[in-house]
Amino acid sequence: MNKEKEFNDYRNRMNARLLETDNKLIKRIFNLDTNAFSDGNLNKEIKELLGLACSLVLRCDDCVKYHLGKCYELGFKSGEVLEAMSVATLIGGTIVIPHLRKAMEYWDEINKNVSEGS
Amino acid sequence: MNKEKEFNDYRNRMNARLLETDNKLIKRIFNLDTNAFSDGNLNKEIKELLGLACSLVLRCDDCVKYHLGKCYELGFKSGEVLEAMSVATLIGGTIVIPHLRKAMEYWDEINKNVSEGS
Amino acid sequence: MNKEKEFNDYRNRMNARLLETDNKLIKRIFNLDTNAFSDGNLNKEIKELLGLACSLVLRCDDCVKYHLGKCYELGFKSGEVLEAMSVATLIGGTIVIPHLRKAMEYWDEINKNVSEGS
Amino acid sequence: MNKEKEFNDYRNRMNARLLETDNKLIKRIFNLDTNAFSDGNLNKEIKELLGLACSLVLRCDDCVKYHLGKCYELGFKSGEVLEAMSVATLIGGTIVIPHLRKAMEYWDEINKNVSEGS
Amino acid sequence: MNKEKEFNDYRNRMNARLLETDNKLIKRIFNLDTNAFSDGNLNKEIKELLGLACSLVLRCDDCVKYHLGKCYELGFKSGEVLEAMSVATLIGGTIVIPHLRKAMEYWDEINKNVSEGS
Amino acid sequence: MNKEKEFNDYRNRMNARLLETDNKLIKRIFNLDTNAFSDGNLNKEIKELLGLACSLVLRCDDCVKYHLGKCYELGFKSGEVLEAMSVATLIGGTIVIPHLRKAMEYWDEINKNVSEGS
Repeated sequence: MNKEKEFNDYRNRMNARLLETDNKLIKRIFNLDTNAFSDGNLNKEIKELLGLACSLVLRCDDCVKYHLGKCYELGFKSGEVLEAMSVATLIGGTIVIPHLRKAMEYWDEINKNVSEGS
Repeated sequence: MNKEKEFNDYRNRMNARLLETDNKLIKRIFNLDTNAFSDGNLNKEIKELLGLACSLVLRCDDCVKYHLGKCYELGFKSGEVLEAMSVATLIGGTIVIPHLRKAMEYWDEINKNVSEGS
Repeated sequence: MNKEKEFNDYRNRMNARLLETDNKLIKRIFNLDTNAFSDGNLNKEIKELLGLACSLVLRCDDCVKYHLGKCYELGFKSGEVLEAMSVATLIGGTIVIPHLRKAMEYWDEINKNVSEGS
Repeated sequence: MNKEKEFNDYRNRMNARLLETDNKLIKRIFNLDTNAFSDGNLNKEIKELLGLACSLVLRCDDCVKYHLGKCYELGFKSGEVLEAMSVATLIGGTIVIPHLRKAMEYWDEINKNVSEGS
Repeated sequence: MNKEKEFNDYRNRMNARLLETDNKLIKRIFNLDTNAFSDGNLNKEIKELLGLACSLVLRCDDCVKYHLGKCYELGFKSGEVLEAMSVATLIGGTIVIPHLRKAMEYWDEINKNVSEGS
Repeated sequence: MNKEKEFNDYRNRMNARLLETDNKLIKRIFNLDTNAFSDGNLNKEIKELLGLACSLVLRCDDCVKYHLGKCYELGFKSGEVLEAMSVATLIGGTIVIPHLRKAMEYWDEINKNVSEGS
């Protein structure tokens, strides 16, 4: 199974598992998360880049993967995504670089999957 | 091998490896760690929840697994463990969610292992 | 003006300022925050200690002050509050100690204000 | 002295002090920092918002102030700045709120200084 | 009162306050802290630099001040201290710079106090 | 494939991938990283220990592995490397221990590979 599908399947399965519990706070946080990245005073493209950069400085690989997937769907080009990630790397320091390597690998994977029609 | 046993075996093996070195500071930190979660002015149940919530906001998957195992031994119910983790997720933000997914999966694994008598 | 009142006044004034803007996401996060610490599967006393410990490992002085104020209102004794903070200091490391000093000072201030009837 | 001027004066003075030492690495990091936020594959407006959001999730008050100053110069409106900060607060959690309060206060200060012609 | 004395007085006073409580865990953590920076397999000079650099990447201003004071006592020159801090700034990113400014100011203060015989 | 070779191969491959993009900021950050750990006011041995300790308190497993490899090349003994890591664990807290376990395992792997001539 390719890494993009593996990531999304696990994410969807465990999110569903968390939502089937009766914990209302988790439900509400998930709900806020869905709404926060839609068009508002800033458009959803800019907000997705904010999500990507914040995820990278906080060094959360899974969050980075999620936002890379969204950035691809929104039509961002590699040069734009890389530039957002380079700013995050400068702000967060060289400690971010291992996460940047994984992000680059995942971005390439997304693009390869599309070109191969997977 | 199930994930719970795999986690505990690796943890025990490497802790033993660290303690066989002659580094006294590591020994003492390990020693403090053992004592810190026993009954005192607060009971050990509350302290274990503190350990779980702190581990989750600091996004340390292995620390979360360890405290989930202890919470299970102490008789906490799913609703209680989830509520502690939901508070931690609110405090630590959506960046905590990928770690919450892994925590949920590990908690389910612990409960499944018990029901299957493993 | 004493430090406890100064902290609470600033906090109340700026929270009101944030809520008077038309940003719905901030409003909703504030709303979740209010509800998260009420009685549920865990009682509000335990949840307040979780908030205190998480705030300390994340080294947020203002969050620590807020939860110390709440812990006082809920009737926690110094030995209990200190024990929760000592567990957080062990988990978070000596980097937490400067924040523990400020927390101790603020806790003493709260207790002094009460005994002086302020 | 108003807080905006106080912040900028201290920042400028200490940056100059650091650059007058013979440490080349610090000089180069400062140099990268200056270039990173200029127009490229992403325009400088978006990059400034990335800087603001990353600074807020990393809870660096001085970095937030700096980027708020730049956002003002670039013509961002309050609703836009607040929306970027609200996304950062969701990602970084309620632990970010004390820093959001200070950010709001500083943003108001910038706007007041301008309207008063200071 | 100069900033160096102000910092040390507050630190000493609150450490004493914490140690007069009956919390054994805090006492033991303080005790480990004292011993950890003495000569061992690495000499105390190197360990002090480790303490300084770790404090800076973790962005703890008070911890940085403490280790700068110790580095001065151990005879480190400005060029050496700055180099350790520049490596930490690269690793921790530009988010560290506001803390580097305060560290530089405090280092200058220490050196000025000595030359003035205070 | 052994873990040391696996780590280095992935790191080299993805660093090359990042450098083949036209992002100048990433190139410059990589360039600074290479130069920062060479002899200067502090020798490269001390700087490598700073890199190791900072990586451990920031809990970046891959950064720790990289610096452990360099420490081995520079001739550091196990007792020295462990002492630097024990100081980092005290500063960063018990949350660092899972990363210390992985670091110990990787250090043993490096030493085993050498003794086996791999």
